[in-house]
Amino acid sequence: MTDKKRTTIVLFSGDYDKAMAAYIIANGAAAYDHEVTIFHTFWGLNALRKDENIEVKKSFMEKMFGKMMPRGADKMGLSKMHFAGMGPKMIKGIMKKHNALPLPDLIEMAKEQEVKLVACTMTMDLLGLQKEELLDGVEYAGVAAYLGDAQDGQVNLFI
Amino acid sequence: MTDKKRTTIVLFSGDYDKAMAAYIIANGAAAYDHEVTIFHTFWGLNALRKDENIEVKKSFMEKMFGKMMPRGADKMGLSKMHFAGMGPKMIKGIMKKHNALPLPDLIEMAKEQEVKLVACTMTMDLLGLQKEELLDGVEYAGVAAYLGDAQDGQVNLFI
Amino acid sequence: MTDKKRTTIVLFSGDYDKAMAAYIIANGAAAYDHEVTIFHTFWGLNALRKDENIEVKKSFMEKMFGKMMPRGADKMGLSKMHFAGMGPKMIKGIMKKHNALPLPDLIEMAKEQEVKLVACTMTMDLLGLQKEELLDGVEYAGVAAYLGDAQDGQVNLFI
Repeated sequence: MTDKKRTTIVLFSGDYDKAMAAYIIANGAAAYDHEVTIFHTFWGLNALRKDENIEVKKSFMEKMFGKMMPRGADKMGLSKMHFAGMGPKMIKGIMKKHNALPLPDLIEMAKEQEVKLVACTMTMDLLGLQKEELLDGVEYAGVAAYLGDAQDGQVNLFI
Repeated sequence: MTDKKRTTIVLFSGDYDKAMAAYIIANGAAAYDHEVTIFHTFWGLNALRKDENIEVKKSFMEKMFGKMMPRGADKMGLSKMHFAGMGPKMIKGIMKKHNALPLPDLIEMAKEQEVKLVACTMTMDLLGLQKEELLDGVEYAGVAAYLGDAQDGQVNLFI
Repeated sequence: MTDKKRTTIVLFSGDYDKAMAAYIIANGAAAYDHEVTIFHTFWGLNALRKDENIEVKKSFMEKMFGKMMPRGADKMGLSKMHFAGMGPKMIKGIMKKHNALPLPDLIEMAKEQEVKLVACTMTMDLLGLQKEELLDGVEYAGVAAYLGDAQDGQVNLFI
């Protein structure tokens, strides 16, 4: 355990706005010189998906899951305010106008700041996601590794 | 305050998948030799309900609430991905195939590992839930007791 | 950094019940003599809106957002259990019967207990909310200020 402060975030949610909040806090903490980990589990894994279709061998159910879930950060929906699909477009339009970074750029920035992006292997297995389908530079671990980081953390959040 | 590390989780959500995440983290932390508390409040109380109907005296509103809320962990729905009701069945089918423990088993394991399962008395009162309707071995407390645990905790999450 | 314990809550959610949980924990922690901060971001900002319409200059999109989002704590909806709009009314009726404090009163109590209520300036900008539209006594800050508080906190939650 170093003297550095540490922030860990469990990103469970697959919502665009919640993932934005997670990455904004993570980037802020990295700028603050914290060691930062985002542990992506369940629907939060979708933020790490590549946006193209990757050919991997899957069971029928895994293929269905793969199709139903959004492929990558840019395709995720909002947690609230779906008005005939207007929600995500509105938010993205407004973000552009205000020069706020969209989610894929926030993820890129996190990688550059050496935020550790971890994919939960147990839920990858459940949802039938394979390493080839996730962004490069992602690490793979389970809940024990998360807890190892979190128990030394000052700021631990579940999003 | 002992030298033991401590994990506390507020389980507010009544979603099957979020409750799974809570119990997986709790069981992991207990295996890590943490003292672990799950404080069930609002819809999270449903995870602690017995699955049979228990005869207790209730007002009309309390009876309605009791009927509308899922009776026990196995009846809870998913936070996302309801495709004509397919969601929970799909997840449970896939979990079975992968030998992942369903929620009732995760709760049983938590009890065996001496995870402290607490029901929030204030929200029990609001929702008209009585002790007879909840699982055996559950403790009863309010927000003050939760904070007493959490302020000595290393990993504190709200799920 | 004082000897006082500290609780920080990120209130991201715009749900009445989640905001209640946030304020109940905050008030409990303040009674426990913690220094408490609630950092309102995204939809959580709605809890801080004044309930009347305030005349401020806005773009068309900002006006639309302003109309679509609930104006103040009392107008927020529930996270679950909307049965033809019955949900929020039922909860409020039951709360009244049990002498539980409604959300606006919980916010008032938090102010009296000197809980620091912070509005996230970045998301205010995104959603087009202006200071004149928010409750008096609210502070304005960004993620860096939140992290400054949270890294010295014992209980840090994301709700």
